Amino acid sequence: MPELRRDPIIGRWVIIASERGKRPYDFVVEKEKTKGGFCPLCPGHEHTTPPEVLAYGRPTHNPNGPDWQLRVVPNKFPALVIEGELDKRGEGIYDKMNGIGAHEVIVETPNHHEPLSALPVEQLALVFRAYKDRIIDLARDMRFKYIIVFKNFGKAAGASLEHSHSQLIALPIVPQIIQEELDGCLRYYDYKERCVFCDIIRQERSQDIRLVDENDDFITICPFAPRSPFEMWVLPKRHQSRFISMDDEQLFQLAKLFSSTMKKLDKILPRVPYNFMLHTAPLRDSHLEHYHWHIEIMPKVSTVAGFEWGTGFHINTVPPEEAASILKGS
Amino acid sequence: MPELRRDPIIGRWVIIASERGKRPYDFVVEKEKTKGGFCPLCPGHEHTTPPEVLAYGRPTHNPNGPDWQLRVVPNKFPALVIEGELDKRGEGIYDKMNGIGAHEVIVETPNHHEPLSALPVEQLALVFRAYKDRIIDLARDMRFKYIIVFKNFGKAAGASLEHSHSQLIALPIVPQIIQEELDGCLRYYDYKERCVFCDIIRQERSQDIRLVDENDDFITICPFAPRSPFEMWVLPKRHQSRFISMDDEQLFQLAKLFSSTMKKLDKILPRVPYNFMLHTAPLRDSHLEHYHWHIEIMPKVSTVAGFEWGTGFHINTVPPEEAASILKGS
Repeated sequence: MPELRRDPIIGRWVIIASERGKRPYDFVVEKEKTKGGFCPLCPGHEHTTPPEVLAYGRPTHNPNGPDWQLRVVPNKFPALVIEGELDKRGEGIYDKMNGIGAHEVIVETPNHHEPLSALPVEQLALVFRAYKDRIIDLARDMRFKYIIVFKNFGKAAGASLEHSHSQLIALPIVPQIIQEELDGCLRYYDYKERCVFCDIIRQERSQDIRLVDENDDFITICPFAPRSPFEMWVLPKRHQSRFISMDDEQLFQLAKLFSSTMKKLDKILPRVPYNFMLHTAPLRDSHLEHYHWHIEIMPKVSTVAGFEWGTGFHINTVPPEEAASILKGS
Repeated sequence: MPELRRDPIIGRWVIIASERGKRPYDFVVEKEKTKGGFCPLCPGHEHTTPPEVLAYGRPTHNPNGPDWQLRVVPNKFPALVIEGELDKRGEGIYDKMNGIGAHEVIVETPNHHEPLSALPVEQLALVFRAYKDRIIDLARDMRFKYIIVFKNFGKAAGASLEHSHSQLIALPIVPQIIQEELDGCLRYYDYKERCVFCDIIRQERSQDIRLVDENDDFITICPFAPRSPFEMWVLPKRHQSRFISMDDEQLFQLAKLFSSTMKKLDKILPRVPYNFMLHTAPLRDSHLEHYHWHIEIMPKVSTVAGFEWGTGFHINTVPPEEAASILKGS
């Protein structure tokens, strides 16, 4: 019998319908052709991107030269632009404002052929340090209310470049999904005086049926009501509302667990396209008792179709308990 | 300069970033290979589907025989099942219930090679009549709170069968997106004492920059804050909260406008994969002053990626004014 499950944070329902798994395996990973050709993110091609806003590991003072370990550049085709005023205004019953924001690309490695799952832990720690450094820097611009960091891997998951990279977008408003999370977390906190994510971690560690991986500081679980097969969340075990509150040791521990998590995914579904998204407290909130930052990893193995568009429901053919057990054993 | 636009109903923001249109045309329609092979929806194969729950046009009393004009059958791989109790229960901090519901397939035509955009208007009117008849019938089951009708056309939009069909799913709860719409509409009504959709229709007819098509009873617009390029909404001009309130003449007029709308889309983007979703009032509400049924058409020309998953925002490279002008002229 299929099951309807509700996410305890924002109240999103999903249908866990493993019976539909009888259909030809929904999550066969289609091989993506390597495009080859010119890569603007490779060393030696620095002049083809906008001037960098951050670089690690460059030995000499030679901005935009080729000797770097990690590089952050503005997106050449930004969804939002950095110059200008918001100019909030109406058009009859409608509301709009200028698309002010920042859109940057984090080039995670100089090596074109090295996917994130193959990065050495030290290099992955640099990636997370870059997220932190860029958020701190951009937060000084008071027009921005939220910064979303995300990664699209594989064409099916929206990546237009092969070279391993993630992106960040600074937004002049707190996005709907984050606001719903914040509202849900606050409702729970008002009722229980506890963080809902801390309670989730407690229950997942004690039940041990959706736990994928953990170390002293971090934990990876398949969430109770996952939108997609093999969806995973990585959370700090100790309450922390902001990603930028992490020190270097925590960044390293995160990289360790994240690397091991992504290797597990890659073993089960080799080179599966995926998205991951950092959820952290809005820029203008400091330490929130009710919110808990985390990273959501969504393998791209199903299609958002009419039912999902029309309802906000998701149909998932792999129960998270089954996904966790497969991933844990890998 | 990109623009941030807010949907006046549920407050969803989208980024209209036509500058990104400089990227290689995002909405090239990839040719989908015809799969061929056995089709369970074709006449003569009635025994391969579960027994039908509705058929039109069959001359003799011969259930599940081959002489039909339109047929509705339970989905062979249902996301929800019809037998059983909801049995709402907890698992620690989590909530779940049994996946009780109905999942049916509306076979829109006996002709395997006839897409919806090519259906004669009379046949399309039958399709809409089938939606109405099935909603009325299923609504008698008091376990159901909402029925979503939708269509997935093309593999990229989630269709697993080529033969033209739509689907309906009866749900034991009102889905999140519909609830958000209802809440937004009620907020607007409380403030203005007018239906927000009626106001949208009024503004769109007077501005005439996002209007695609209309007849005496219905109107097609590109919404102000569309999630996808060439998104369109079809609405009844006179206030009506429930799809099932339509009489035969209205069903025919809807079919006329819908057919002409889909032909326009097909002309601009031949055989583009798409989803459409019927939004109507929940089953247990009768005539709502604040809600207005409509159909949302979403061509599948972009990818839901990390940014959309993480924020609920959408980035759209084609302003609706441009889309409407192209569609209108086609």
